[in-house]
Amino acid sequence: MSFDLKDWSAERLAAVEHALTAWLPSGPPADLSESMRYAVLDGGKRLRPLLVLAAAEAVEGHPQAAIRAACAVELIHAYSLVHDDMPCMDNDVLRRGKPTVHVRFGEATALLAGDALQALAFELLAPQGEDIPAATQARLCGLLARAAGHAGMAGGQAIDLAAVGRTLTEDELRHMHRLKTGALLQASVRMGAACGGTSATAEAGLDAYGRAMGLAFQVVDDILDVTADSATLGKTAGKDAAQDKPTYVSLLGLERARAHARELLAQALGALDTTGLRETTALRALAHMVVDRDN
Amino acid sequence: MSFDLKDWSAERLAAVEHALTAWLPSGPPADLSESMRYAVLDGGKRLRPLLVLAAAEAVEGHPQAAIRAACAVELIHAYSLVHDDMPCMDNDVLRRGKPTVHVRFGEATALLAGDALQALAFELLAPQGEDIPAATQARLCGLLARAAGHAGMAGGQAIDLAAVGRTLTEDELRHMHRLKTGALLQASVRMGAACGGTSATAEAGLDAYGRAMGLAFQVVDDILDVTADSATLGKTAGKDAAQDKPTYVSLLGLERARAHARELLAQALGALDTTGLRETTALRALAHMVVDRDN
Repeated sequence: MSFDLKDWSAERLAAVEHALTAWLPSGPPADLSESMRYAVLDGGKRLRPLLVLAAAEAVEGHPQAAIRAACAVELIHAYSLVHDDMPCMDNDVLRRGKPTVHVRFGEATALLAGDALQALAFELLAPQGEDIPAATQARLCGLLARAAGHAGMAGGQAIDLAAVGRTLTEDELRHMHRLKTGALLQASVRMGAACGGTSATAEAGLDAYGRAMGLAFQVVDDILDVTADSATLGKTAGKDAAQDKPTYVSLLGLERARAHARELLAQALGALDTTGLRETTALRALAHMVVDRDN
Repeated sequence: MSFDLKDWSAERLAAVEHALTAWLPSGPPADLSESMRYAVLDGGKRLRPLLVLAAAEAVEGHPQAAIRAACAVELIHAYSLVHDDMPCMDNDVLRRGKPTVHVRFGEATALLAGDALQALAFELLAPQGEDIPAATQARLCGLLARAAGHAGMAGGQAIDLAAVGRTLTEDELRHMHRLKTGALLQASVRMGAACGGTSATAEAGLDAYGRAMGLAFQVVDDILDVTADSATLGKTAGKDAAQDKPTYVSLLGLERARAHARELLAQALGALDTTGLRETTALRALAHMVVDRDN
């Protein structure tokens, strides 16, 4: 029987949505709970949770740990979008086709919602009274914290801030994206793998896959920013060019950027071959999806 | 030999400062590292780290876990101040006698610095290649995440936001403060205790101590807001009244607020008596310090 990514994803996305719905707060203070739910639910491609779950399945990882890791990564991603959209950052009013959180709830609540989403991510990873091994919990917390912080996503955003209006070399641009979006995508794969036991060889291969995927995702994002319209993207298109931000397209041109995305896909798939794992079909299909997506 | 809190604190504060200096990032991106260090180093009373260390000593906890927990709690506290001072929140320009982070580094960097400080807190609690038991790491992460998030500090700030200009009952005010400042203070005691092994009786007593201390701290804060000047406080005095924020002083009057602080001190000390722990001298002295401080 052939593998259908749509079927595979639908089942996992339903589980993730169900878990997020249950784990996001719903009581008072109402504004905070509502803004957190608004920022997370019914939106986004959930690429990071799917990567966590695909990697966890490849290593036959602990299912409860995997769903918690999948949701935690998505919460970090969601919080970063809330803060990134704020007036002092990108000042964006549209996200996933809806008003951004600060437009809907005000800036102060958006700030707090982002902060509380980050805390909730770690809360999910270190639950009380669950049968997830403590070593797995601790490792998941460490991986996510390192990917989210100064040497990961937040660091990449700081480089991005400092880069507006400057010309970056391809190395500098790559470094920025390795942190800004790459770190969390790579952490998704690592966290999935951490839900089970892996050989050093498998871990190295999964890491190389995650690294190539993280970069491919950003290259394709830069391409879509100039080729897609806002309706398809669900966010403001042409934003990077308008803000004079360096992108793979501004640096390499559209055709070379597209070729680069294909190379990274080949790297990601090649890395999976080195893992010695049998169940990498979903990881393969996700790599193709990232490069071939239109939003 | 009698116990001297000043000597006891000086030794521990030096260790905390040394550890924070080492664990805060110092490399690129420069703005992010500098703003994180600026927000944390050379400032503050470090009450939370001292509570962690005093509780850890009371239960003969793992020293490396304790110093990491002490620093992690302080990072969460520091990030909350950075975000709280931002224009969309309290819009404050002075903190610990220095310009606030957003005044010094800009709003976008302040936002990122706060986000990265929160991530760093969890990074410290779940280090790679340390001999801290995984169960301790996981428990510390869980305690801190719950205290920082929607059911703790961030939730309290959201209630505070919604309360400006409204009249709160004493119950509502207490609930707000239990979350806004109490949760993290109580977590400090809990995290210190989690660095060792405690009986259920000791844990309950320490919890009651932490709860009373957390509330006492806030009552005294409200008193100092009206009785101290900005120079002594190192922050803008009279701020709550100017913003028409409900406080213990506005609700109870100055004298009854002072009496309430003494009652809470007595509760905290009484709770320690129930723990059965021998080494509670530092915890006792810290409780006195919180209520008798002038800044």
